[in-house]
Amino acid sequence: MNFEYSDKVNDLLARVNGFLDQHLYPIEAQLLETIDTQPDRWAIPPEIEALKAKAKAAGLWNLFLPEFEDYGYGLTNLEYAPLAEVMGRTRFGSEVFNCSAPDTGNMEVLARYGNEEQKERWLKPLLNGEIRSAFAMTEPEVASCDATNIETRITRDGDEYVINGRKWYISGACDPRCKILIVMGKTDPDNANRYIQQSQILVPIDTDGVTIVRPMKVFGNDDAPEGHAEIRFDNVRVPASNILLGEGRGFEIAQGRLGPGRIHHCMRLIGAAQRALEMMCVRAENRIAFGRPLIKQGSVREDIANSVCEIEQARLLTLKAADMMDRQGNKAAREMIAMIKVVAPRMACQVIDRAMQLHGAAGLSQDFRLAELYMYARTVRLADGPDQVHMMQLGRDLARRWNGQ
Amino acid sequence: MNFEYSDKVNDLLARVNGFLDQHLYPIEAQLLETIDTQPDRWAIPPEIEALKAKAKAAGLWNLFLPEFEDYGYGLTNLEYAPLAEVMGRTRFGSEVFNCSAPDTGNMEVLARYGNEEQKERWLKPLLNGEIRSAFAMTEPEVASCDATNIETRITRDGDEYVINGRKWYISGACDPRCKILIVMGKTDPDNANRYIQQSQILVPIDTDGVTIVRPMKVFGNDDAPEGHAEIRFDNVRVPASNILLGEGRGFEIAQGRLGPGRIHHCMRLIGAAQRALEMMCVRAENRIAFGRPLIKQGSVREDIANSVCEIEQARLLTLKAADMMDRQGNKAAREMIAMIKVVAPRMACQVIDRAMQLHGAAGLSQDFRLAELYMYARTVRLADGPDQVHMMQLGRDLARRWNGQ
Amino acid sequence: MNFEYSDKVNDLLARVNGFLDQHLYPIEAQLLETIDTQPDRWAIPPEIEALKAKAKAAGLWNLFLPEFEDYGYGLTNLEYAPLAEVMGRTRFGSEVFNCSAPDTGNMEVLARYGNEEQKERWLKPLLNGEIRSAFAMTEPEVASCDATNIETRITRDGDEYVINGRKWYISGACDPRCKILIVMGKTDPDNANRYIQQSQILVPIDTDGVTIVRPMKVFGNDDAPEGHAEIRFDNVRVPASNILLGEGRGFEIAQGRLGPGRIHHCMRLIGAAQRALEMMCVRAENRIAFGRPLIKQGSVREDIANSVCEIEQARLLTLKAADMMDRQGNKAAREMIAMIKVVAPRMACQVIDRAMQLHGAAGLSQDFRLAELYMYARTVRLADGPDQVHMMQLGRDLARRWNGQ
Amino acid sequence: MNFEYSDKVNDLLARVNGFLDQHLYPIEAQLLETIDTQPDRWAIPPEIEALKAKAKAAGLWNLFLPEFEDYGYGLTNLEYAPLAEVMGRTRFGSEVFNCSAPDTGNMEVLARYGNEEQKERWLKPLLNGEIRSAFAMTEPEVASCDATNIETRITRDGDEYVINGRKWYISGACDPRCKILIVMGKTDPDNANRYIQQSQILVPIDTDGVTIVRPMKVFGNDDAPEGHAEIRFDNVRVPASNILLGEGRGFEIAQGRLGPGRIHHCMRLIGAAQRALEMMCVRAENRIAFGRPLIKQGSVREDIANSVCEIEQARLLTLKAADMMDRQGNKAAREMIAMIKVVAPRMACQVIDRAMQLHGAAGLSQDFRLAELYMYARTVRLADGPDQVHMMQLGRDLARRWNGQ
Repeated sequence: MNFEYSDKVNDLLARVNGFLDQHLYPIEAQLLETIDTQPDRWAIPPEIEALKAKAKAAGLWNLFLPEFEDYGYGLTNLEYAPLAEVMGRTRFGSEVFNCSAPDTGNMEVLARYGNEEQKERWLKPLLNGEIRSAFAMTEPEVASCDATNIETRITRDGDEYVINGRKWYISGACDPRCKILIVMGKTDPDNANRYIQQSQILVPIDTDGVTIVRPMKVFGNDDAPEGHAEIRFDNVRVPASNILLGEGRGFEIAQGRLGPGRIHHCMRLIGAAQRALEMMCVRAENRIAFGRPLIKQGSVREDIANSVCEIEQARLLTLKAADMMDRQGNKAAREMIAMIKVVAPRMACQVIDRAMQLHGAAGLSQDFRLAELYMYARTVRLADGPDQVHMMQLGRDLARRWNGQ
Repeated sequence: MNFEYSDKVNDLLARVNGFLDQHLYPIEAQLLETIDTQPDRWAIPPEIEALKAKAKAAGLWNLFLPEFEDYGYGLTNLEYAPLAEVMGRTRFGSEVFNCSAPDTGNMEVLARYGNEEQKERWLKPLLNGEIRSAFAMTEPEVASCDATNIETRITRDGDEYVINGRKWYISGACDPRCKILIVMGKTDPDNANRYIQQSQILVPIDTDGVTIVRPMKVFGNDDAPEGHAEIRFDNVRVPASNILLGEGRGFEIAQGRLGPGRIHHCMRLIGAAQRALEMMCVRAENRIAFGRPLIKQGSVREDIANSVCEIEQARLLTLKAADMMDRQGNKAAREMIAMIKVVAPRMACQVIDRAMQLHGAAGLSQDFRLAELYMYARTVRLADGPDQVHMMQLGRDLARRWNGQ
Repeated sequence: MNFEYSDKVNDLLARVNGFLDQHLYPIEAQLLETIDTQPDRWAIPPEIEALKAKAKAAGLWNLFLPEFEDYGYGLTNLEYAPLAEVMGRTRFGSEVFNCSAPDTGNMEVLARYGNEEQKERWLKPLLNGEIRSAFAMTEPEVASCDATNIETRITRDGDEYVINGRKWYISGACDPRCKILIVMGKTDPDNANRYIQQSQILVPIDTDGVTIVRPMKVFGNDDAPEGHAEIRFDNVRVPASNILLGEGRGFEIAQGRLGPGRIHHCMRLIGAAQRALEMMCVRAENRIAFGRPLIKQGSVREDIANSVCEIEQARLLTLKAADMMDRQGNKAAREMIAMIKVVAPRMACQVIDRAMQLHGAAGLSQDFRLAELYMYARTVRLADGPDQVHMMQLGRDLARRWNGQ
Repeated sequence: MNFEYSDKVNDLLARVNGFLDQHLYPIEAQLLETIDTQPDRWAIPPEIEALKAKAKAAGLWNLFLPEFEDYGYGLTNLEYAPLAEVMGRTRFGSEVFNCSAPDTGNMEVLARYGNEEQKERWLKPLLNGEIRSAFAMTEPEVASCDATNIETRITRDGDEYVINGRKWYISGACDPRCKILIVMGKTDPDNANRYIQQSQILVPIDTDGVTIVRPMKVFGNDDAPEGHAEIRFDNVRVPASNILLGEGRGFEIAQGRLGPGRIHHCMRLIGAAQRALEMMCVRAENRIAFGRPLIKQGSVREDIANSVCEIEQARLLTLKAADMMDRQGNKAAREMIAMIKVVAPRMACQVIDRAMQLHGAAGLSQDFRLAELYMYARTVRLADGPDQVHMMQLGRDLARRWNGQ
């Protein structure tokens, strides 16, 4: 047992932090303003592509990707986690290092299960940051946290599959760079084993029958230029080879990407919360009310103290989950992964909310990053199922185990 | 002691509810979509003006206004409060009955302290719903919850006052119908008695030197077409008679409008929370997850039960505050008014957040009203000073009193 | 709607408060010390009987009892509630006015359903404060919040009923003055209608086969001299006429006493919390830490402010429940009664816990009343079923109703 | 970074757990009953001394003590911490391994600062488990969390020091085996440097002028046979050589013992919470209410899930604090130690409270360990100063640091 980062991690952390300090933070406010006010809401500001090029040149690229054949940066989950934290401090943090969701999970899936042609056509440009991708799972009409509810159908017809269904909150699918969707749907809806009803299939976004219906909003924001699309699939036809890993393996693939995905999300949220805490500290030292800086108020100090306690605890829990995944595999770490999914988004919402409160009206405004960080955290509390769903399983499993003792 | 509404209130409630059921709810979603997508963000949809005309014709107009000379609907605070609750259920609820903040407070101020000319020019069209108004108090650079921090200067120069300063989050000031501002600033910044440093003054929005700098945002939303403006006052000159009640009376006027304003805000939030709770109930009965409706989940029932307990308690507290204001005056009710300011916004945030959580992604979307209700509630937690400020005074006053026993 | 106590209530409040101020508070600490250290743990200190005589002489006696035939003080629930609050401020507050649970409920039951002989033998001495009583419902082996679980059997045998079973946490049954038990058990355990399986029956505590097994403890305290008994019933025989209201009416009787009982308990807890708050205020003003009184700490002020908000809200909710019971009956007030049961004990625990924290070690000690008040509140959170059970029903009922709208 | 216990720790854990399983748990309930009912409240049950002998024979003795000269088991804080957790699961867990507070801290102090004679007379019998000791710091009249408040005086008079003052909640001082007190008081109350006003001095408990006034209670319990004494020191005279480390070094010594002491306390609380959680699981699986086991209730599962998340996070935080103390020293770990002091007791109270709630009346009773575990946790929330005090410093320090960035 050892609670210190390795030299390797500390070195990478310094480089990633250095990059953000030098290149991203100085233009962050202007970049957000550009996105907010540019005439074409869905245009990609050239600054972002320029930052990506710089990060690539600096060797800070695809850090998330474990060793696969020729690809991959080769970090363990535990090594990557602190970098994800730092990337989560700012909206563009992941993107400039080509470490954005859902591309990260999609690249892993393609690296593992794609055939050579698919790798050539989709994985390479994704790894190069030339295109982006989306993962089409959530549906409006059903509780998608229960994957067996999914209503999209993927039907074999000769050499092709035909896809019909409706998805929403498909993050990244409004982005003009998004070229490929991984779609989850049922190939065998009546199979008694509900874990093999589903498949995942590659669908180029420009395929006939794919319609981006509208951008879904989060607290009224469309999150352009990436956005969260509502998508209709009407008799969409793709070659049969586009199925990933084989019919009925959709649930299995989804499970495989879940673990690392949650680590990334949770660490980003920890970064978001940490940034909010630091902003809270700066505000508390410098803002005067009733004749003295806010930090003189006991309740402000309690907010800061409680926040640091909550952040550090969530960080350690997530790092332990990462360590367990590395050592014992996703399955053994299943409970830890449920735990971080329950803990980290709730913690981040709480900490960022305190920071907003301390900032007064400014905390809700476009001049600080807090409202934006809050909305990200609030969304993740629901992504992959609300906390409650994870607590149901966790509670059940633990009770069974400890009753057995 | 009696916890039942009077027949008069029940009758008015039925009429207001009936109006909303018949005229507003059926077009609410379409109206919001219009506002969100119309080419001119700041245009007023004609449906709103049409609804206002209908409400006026139905005699449901200016319900908020106590008897003043010839004006006023003549309800007590306790009688108006349940109507404000119902109006708070929907974004346009207050506006159609000409009961929107900050017009309500501004009209009261004009009715009490305006001279005949000011009443003719500003109060009448406000009472008729022909123009709108704003109250310019909050400033970006200082903690405005402590009014002594205010930096805007109002300087006498012959027959005029000259105003210089910067305000932000001035609600309603982006609205094209907004014609008049009541501006709070210091006429005597060095007065040893900090409660008479301030004055309030009428400033027509089209006066030279008044610049709407930009719309301030709340969680990324500009809340068009009303908006929250950042405003610069550069050597703005108005006649000396525009000062309200006299130099140094600004704090006093602000105090006077505060009580009713808080009752209104809190009751609206209770309406917002009540609506969220009802939506939660509908969702819980109808949404299936893991093979059964959500209402079968114990944690969903707890969310509903806790919410109804919190709402009903906040409602009673606010009604009691209104009753005390009616019977004993604003001053005697000061503590109660602080209490509702602490309780109601926090409660509303909590209840609406639960409702969002229960709705999954939909809860954050533009398809339900929840995110919008949440943002309103979150804003009011900060308006007139964050909870913490009110708790500081309340805690101090109570300790002093009970220690004296 | 009117939030002020009537003159009648204010007058009674003044008299009850005056009595406590003059006669009880001055000897409270000494009385508790006596109880704690006297050689016979179960002796009744003569001071208590003396106080009872004084209260009786002052006409402050059986205040809880509505008008019944010749008995009863005749207050409504709404009128009695504020008196119950004041009695809850101190451990002996209810007893000196002959308003202690479970005697209150038992007297009501006897007044309503007892025959003349039973009234003569049990009700009169109870009304006179000469004897005490207990209500034997809770059982150790089953979740008694679900009354259908009850395992005690009441079997007809000729002119007698034979009772077998085990009960625990039977409050008051260790008291040497306790002479009569009302026992809940099943006369018809197999009846398909589970609401008529149960009956209530009078069992003199000295009947053969009734064994006080041991005093049950609460946080290690036996709460002598009243205590909470574990009782075994082994072939206990009583005359058939001891059955109350008739076989199968046990559940109905229990329901009837529930409403007023909850009002009393909740108001007492509000009194307990109010006292804790006042102690907190005194401590905050007078205790010096780090060079200044605690009240200068923002977090202390927040504790006080939050406490007063929570107490006042719970008070209003409980008073409204009482008002509804008076006007519309127990059944119509059912949801309100569930709500206060959820709200008041949790609130009291929270407020008193804050007060303990503010007092440091002293807050847990025998020198202040806080630990004792806390334990009372903590117990009531579980009495009549834990909060969770009430929330289950409340959530279910509300969802059904609002979904129907 | 590595989140797995070392083999050495796992081996010791297995041995300690094995000992408790074999020797302690089977007699735990009977031992508690003995203590509760034995005629002499302050007698030490022979079973405890027998267990100590067994543990000593098994080489599980003084595990807490780092290597000092000839003494000490030689574990690091990080290695000992998981053992302390396990000991915290049961009231006698620490004592049987001679690892009870405050003996642990006192032995460390004697090992470091005692002279040969003092070691011979006090340290050896303490290490052998033949006598016990107490640490007399807290005073009734002042907020002892602020050590500068301490009023006890230690005055040099020739070859002696004379001690006058009053202490309370001196844990262990009622124990008949307690032979030696380490007393904190002021030798130089007027020194401008408030950190060198204090000294610590050895006072044999049987010295003239030392009076055990009474046992202080916690929630009405005297915690016999160890107890928490109120002690009066009236002109108590001890040789000048009894001063530890020298005049004015009292604060320094106190700081030194604080770090390890907090780790121990927090880990014990984590053990207490873990045991409560396991009991909750067993109850949830086996208790039937409304026709099905409690574990079927969503809110029960949430309680379990939230508890495991909170426990695991507090555990990791405490282990990290221990690791930091080992690697970087007490001073560097100061913030981490403040954090665990804030987090662990609050967490334990919360988790154990949930467990009590789930157990109904039984949860408060003498038949389960929960009320006892709760009271221990509640006490530690106040020991060494309430959470609030630690948050004040933590908040201040963090704001300063992050503002500097």
